[in-house]
Amino acid sequence: MKRITILLVAVAALVGVVAFSAITSRHSTAQEAGPIFVSKIPPGYRDWKVVSVAHEEGDLNDIRAILGNDVAINAYRTGKIPFPEGAIIGRIAWSYVPSEENNKAFGRPQSFVAGAPTDFYLQFMVKDSKKYVATGGWGYSSFDKDGKSSPESAMKTCFPCHQAVKGRDFIFTRYTP
Amino acid sequence: MKRITILLVAVAALVGVVAFSAITSRHSTAQEAGPIFVSKIPPGYRDWKVVSVAHEEGDLNDIRAILGNDVAINAYRTGKIPFPEGAIIGRIAWSYVPSEENNKAFGRPQSFVAGAPTDFYLQFMVKDSKKYVATGGWGYSSFDKDGKSSPESAMKTCFPCHQAVKGRDFIFTRYTP
Repeated sequence: MKRITILLVAVAALVGVVAFSAITSRHSTAQEAGPIFVSKIPPGYRDWKVVSVAHEEGDLNDIRAILGNDVAINAYRTGKIPFPEGAIIGRIAWSYVPSEENNKAFGRPQSFVAGAPTDFYLQFMVKDSKKYVATGGWGYSSFDKDGKSSPESAMKTCFPCHQAVKGRDFIFTRYTP
Repeated sequence: MKRITILLVAVAALVGVVAFSAITSRHSTAQEAGPIFVSKIPPGYRDWKVVSVAHEEGDLNDIRAILGNDVAINAYRTGKIPFPEGAIIGRIAWSYVPSEENNKAFGRPQSFVAGAPTDFYLQFMVKDSKKYVATGGWGYSSFDKDGKSSPESAMKTCFPCHQAVKGRDFIFTRYTP
């Protein structure tokens, strides 16, 4: 009887350990798969080639350059969809400011240029189909001017919004030659 | 006497040849020095790094990327003024168009993107202090989407306008990190 009790306790403990491991493992998988856990700024992004440019009014009030690493640019230029593994698309958003200097040269107020970094200065989408399977194969990230990740509440909105262009592999920006 | 006549004729002829050569040479120098004679699009410009971005309202109504070749980008990043020989700064201007697709995703009209090439699609400033001495050491050029040079009347306005920023080596656009 004592032997059986010990065995049951041992089994219970083992189940507990296995259960605990499963929970831990699920948690870390969720972390890897979630869109909010790309925490590194890709090195050299400021040297990347131009995909296009845009201006956002409203709360964003920015002017932005959308750039791509070589894998992404090659895919864009050859029309390859979905984007291959390793593709990274980045965008830099500067505050949208009038240029008094340019306006004086043009002789009328018409010129808007890139000012200081915005609160959501840098954003990247990193293609890794396995790692980011939960968010369409792309990991999302967002950083302020000091390289600090944007709040999770903000980053959680990335993937739901990008689902609007699922047919273009979740990428809004088109390449402009 | 006959000998002297022949000599005078020979000297006169020589002066004529020299004078004619001088005129020809002055003519070709003027052509090279003028701002309207950079007639080639620099190869590979679409792969260059970003200096900044801007939006021009009014007649231009464009959104633009300002790019630089490696010589120009290195000078910008190290604050080197004047720009060294071989520096080229380019700008691509696309028509400024609202994006219905982005607006739908944002839930409000706020997004403007790069559309078709404008009439003054590509413009370049090429640094060659000797060749373009008449225009501050920079040769100017402008092309439409088919690679055709813009009218001389338009290109003649480049240098007078850029003199407003002579202290920054005639370059309006500042590098935005």
